[in-house]
Amino acid sequence: MNEKQKRILEVSIEIFYNKGYANTPVRDIIDASGFGTSTFYRYFQNKEEILKQLLENFFLKIFHNINTFTIEREDFYQDFIEIKQVIMQTFIQNPKLSELYSRSAGTSRLIDECLKSFDDKFLLFYQNQVQYGMDEGFFRAAPTLPIAISTLATIKYVAYKWSVVKEISKEDMINLVLSFHKSILYGIVANSE
Amino acid sequence: MNEKQKRILEVSIEIFYNKGYANTPVRDIIDASGFGTSTFYRYFQNKEEILKQLLENFFLKIFHNINTFTIEREDFYQDFIEIKQVIMQTFIQNPKLSELYSRSAGTSRLIDECLKSFDDKFLLFYQNQVQYGMDEGFFRAAPTLPIAISTLATIKYVAYKWSVVKEISKEDMINLVLSFHKSILYGIVANSE
Repeated sequence: MNEKQKRILEVSIEIFYNKGYANTPVRDIIDASGFGTSTFYRYFQNKEEILKQLLENFFLKIFHNINTFTIEREDFYQDFIEIKQVIMQTFIQNPKLSELYSRSAGTSRLIDECLKSFDDKFLLFYQNQVQYGMDEGFFRAAPTLPIAISTLATIKYVAYKWSVVKEISKEDMINLVLSFHKSILYGIVANSE
Repeated sequence: MNEKQKRILEVSIEIFYNKGYANTPVRDIIDASGFGTSTFYRYFQNKEEILKQLLENFFLKIFHNINTFTIEREDFYQDFIEIKQVIMQTFIQNPKLSELYSRSAGTSRLIDECLKSFDDKFLLFYQNQVQYGMDEGFFRAAPTLPIAISTLATIKYVAYKWSVVKEISKEDMINLVLSFHKSILYGIVANSE
């Protein structure tokens, strides 16, 4: 990606954040970028393509941060929880992208496909991680998809509460996700620990 | 609520389902109801009020079904899981309302407030249920909010996958929620059962 594309994407984040995606005309993005109309259309066909590119960049950041964190056999349970902190930090480091992500469901078919593609990739990654824990004897056998779905759903929900509703702080958001993970690891039944 | 109001709400469900809420003019609802314009405006100021009323009725159904199901001390753990089946059955019995609910986030400030009010009521109800389990010695002490949030988030997510994306069957939806609940009850760590 070249510098001009990057600049267009960066000004778009700000404008979408301030005015809302639906209320932003392409003209505003072009004006804020300082480039001419033809430069803009050389890189993007429309506003939707910008949103799609922003979301994809955000998802790449999440997967990059996940992949640079290695789960060690020695501290498996702790690392299994810690990796969620890494995911939530990606949200915290990108508050405007987080809000855009949390608001973008239902924008258009293209955007919904882009969101679904992230969900599917995340669910697959997470199921593999749980499966690894089972294969190595850390977890007992259980269907992996419900665990992956509840994790993804919880992350999305708290990110929405933090970035859109602004009802919880970033610390609350992290604590909610970590506490949920302790519960699912060790169970909540009185004699299960 | 009188028969005319009920009829207007019922035809609205069908039209919203077929055309989408955003693409439905009030005129279509009035025509389909068979009533005159003045009758419509006696009960509803606009389309948004209809959506709000439909969502509130759906939430009442969910809480009605929850409240008629009593958790017995003898089968506490089983009942604790079973009540989720009762919730998911409310979705299954109202597929068009489920879709409307799953699509309605972000429609307007009024609708978002209505959705938030349901979330808050559900979270409170659920936290109380988990707290009861702790007080009675069935569960060990843990923060109740993360458990309530992960439950609500999971229910919303699978309902969306079933009613909007149509990626999973109603049986899948129930099984995902029940399996998640078994995991959170007993934990997934190998020696936790």
